Amino acid sequence: MRKIAILGSTGSIGTQALDVIRQHPEQFSVVALAAGRNIDLLTEQAHEFQPQLVSVATKELAEKIQHQLPSNTKAVWGEEGALAAATHPDAVFVISAMVGSAGLLPTLAAIEARKEIGLANKETLVTAGHIVMRKAKEHDVSVIPIDSEHSAIFQCLQGEDRSAIRRLILTASGGSFRDLTREQLADVTVKEALAHPNWSMGAKVTIDSATMMNKGLEVIEAHWLFDLPYNKIDTILHKESIIHSMVEFTDRAVMAQLGTPDMRIPIQYAMTYPKRIPLETEPLDLMKVSQLHFTALDFDRYPCLAFAYEAGQKGGTMPTVLNGANEVAVARFLQGDIPFLAIEDTIAHAMAKHEVMENPGLEDIFEADRWARQIAEKYQPA
Amino acid sequence: MRKIAILGSTGSIGTQALDVIRQHPEQFSVVALAAGRNIDLLTEQAHEFQPQLVSVATKELAEKIQHQLPSNTKAVWGEEGALAAATHPDAVFVISAMVGSAGLLPTLAAIEARKEIGLANKETLVTAGHIVMRKAKEHDVSVIPIDSEHSAIFQCLQGEDRSAIRRLILTASGGSFRDLTREQLADVTVKEALAHPNWSMGAKVTIDSATMMNKGLEVIEAHWLFDLPYNKIDTILHKESIIHSMVEFTDRAVMAQLGTPDMRIPIQYAMTYPKRIPLETEPLDLMKVSQLHFTALDFDRYPCLAFAYEAGQKGGTMPTVLNGANEVAVARFLQGDIPFLAIEDTIAHAMAKHEVMENPGLEDIFEADRWARQIAEKYQPA
Repeated sequence: MRKIAILGSTGSIGTQALDVIRQHPEQFSVVALAAGRNIDLLTEQAHEFQPQLVSVATKELAEKIQHQLPSNTKAVWGEEGALAAATHPDAVFVISAMVGSAGLLPTLAAIEARKEIGLANKETLVTAGHIVMRKAKEHDVSVIPIDSEHSAIFQCLQGEDRSAIRRLILTASGGSFRDLTREQLADVTVKEALAHPNWSMGAKVTIDSATMMNKGLEVIEAHWLFDLPYNKIDTILHKESIIHSMVEFTDRAVMAQLGTPDMRIPIQYAMTYPKRIPLETEPLDLMKVSQLHFTALDFDRYPCLAFAYEAGQKGGTMPTVLNGANEVAVARFLQGDIPFLAIEDTIAHAMAKHEVMENPGLEDIFEADRWARQIAEKYQPA
Repeated sequence: MRKIAILGSTGSIGTQALDVIRQHPEQFSVVALAAGRNIDLLTEQAHEFQPQLVSVATKELAEKIQHQLPSNTKAVWGEEGALAAATHPDAVFVISAMVGSAGLLPTLAAIEARKEIGLANKETLVTAGHIVMRKAKEHDVSVIPIDSEHSAIFQCLQGEDRSAIRRLILTASGGSFRDLTREQLADVTVKEALAHPNWSMGAKVTIDSATMMNKGLEVIEAHWLFDLPYNKIDTILHKESIIHSMVEFTDRAVMAQLGTPDMRIPIQYAMTYPKRIPLETEPLDLMKVSQLHFTALDFDRYPCLAFAYEAGQKGGTMPTVLNGANEVAVARFLQGDIPFLAIEDTIAHAMAKHEVMENPGLEDIFEADRWARQIAEKYQPA
């Protein structure tokens, strides 16, 4: 029985991870769940999976939920609560699926506690990849990607010598606005932006898909996960999202992982790695799909992708600024505060003003994050 | 330095294997070459690669070629000559690439001599898979596929637990006549049949692609190579030949190997397995390919595929009869003796008349092969 802690249990990845566990009650049990404010769903989850610990955003929420929990489940709260869930002594595998940069400290704590990590929180690597991967190496901890693209690459690399990698090829669906020109993007609404053609995901990730920042963050994440320079990480537009990513080797063979757009496949793979076990999901029917399409990703059409390569190559605190400014800009767009294209302008503005600090520590990263968020909050689009 | 023997060095696979060796003179050397009657090319190969031994079809050819060979190269001949090449004491890796059932005995001899085998001769497994794989296991010898489809599957299985395989999916280009109806097939010429849209191969294999017998033989080969029942081996029409084959696992993840249609990729992979080394070849450009298509393979359109599944499932001597009748029928078509669709009729006729012998020994297989060839030679299409 593998004992699991889930950070972000009420989110999109968290609920799907619980569905994987639901399908395999003989293989997995839940020892800790960390969520934010959705205490109704968390209460339901606690009754079904009987964790020893649940963590919520505030003391008030913890006091409120405690009365509704099973008798053996204890409610904790705040940053300390999330850390308690991430380092629960019984957990052997921690799914890091909180949204945004809030996932960083609990993930680092889980690594220090020598938990195996299933990583869905990409900001953790984008902002502090050098610290996270160094710490994982020091503590001999596996960081297994849960993102479908990185999971695909991780699967393609099984049994392979990493020195034979020629390049990674991350596939991108193109998001909600793939078929619009930049002129047409000026007036798009929040509702339109949230309608992703292939994947059902959280709001932040769906907007990031539409701006292609999602792919940009994945490029930086891939750089850290697979220890490769940026010139060995390519992207390609593949609108069907069937090939989840590829690896080209030095002999020009290309390995790919394919599947339906069901996040439970990479989630379960991370939980069972290096084994595979059955998963009840719709099988891929290539005859029904019938065609797969591939096009170059145009950096002029998707400037956020260019920003991400630039931030990754500059390194230091720049990816943190890219990410912090993007989080604020996406939130402002979702609140109706700025138009869609101003997300890009906000990020460009913050990056242009930022003076990079090299090899930053955690405090430097938090400071750069705060700085970028302030700049992004105050930015007024022309 | 890996010392290589090539059985079938003047054929399509043999010359491409030599090209791989030419690209990596620091990694490979040639100790023995076996060919048939093409002594001009064999002489050239001997001067370039300086093998200790070359084998040709007959004593006369051996005497003729001996004077043209480098001073350290000895010419031998016939079945014994091929066996000497296959078991050359210095060879560690034997490429089995003779055309047709002639490859069986030398391959078995190489296994008994504990050479690692790169297998391109599919008839070896089709007619005697139970003997070959048992012997390989007994002698702890790896049989590494060179066929692009089986190499793709073999690559997809690296680092995977074979018990997690749900099914193999062999891709088929559809061959020269993919877009013709069965009515249109009645009058096709040998020249039209030899014009394969994607791959440059020998005449026998090109015709087998057009009848889809090639895929049928590959299904039987996959059964033996990967030790899977026929209901776990599927086929799909994929006209671009970019995805070379796939494996679906129990978690519904699908792994695929892709590449340009260059046989040197699987040949080199077999030679360097489990490592990969650079190969100078045109890289796969998915943006240029732009689209990949997938369609069900229609057993009514391609009866040879149905024959192969039937022969494989009946087992015993039936795959030998399938293969022997097919070899004769293809030769008769290439000689202009029978029309294209009579290839199918010939095979159906032989299979219908054959009484299966279960678990045949080598002599039983040769007897069934002789019997099937006689039947196929004598068959007169309606």
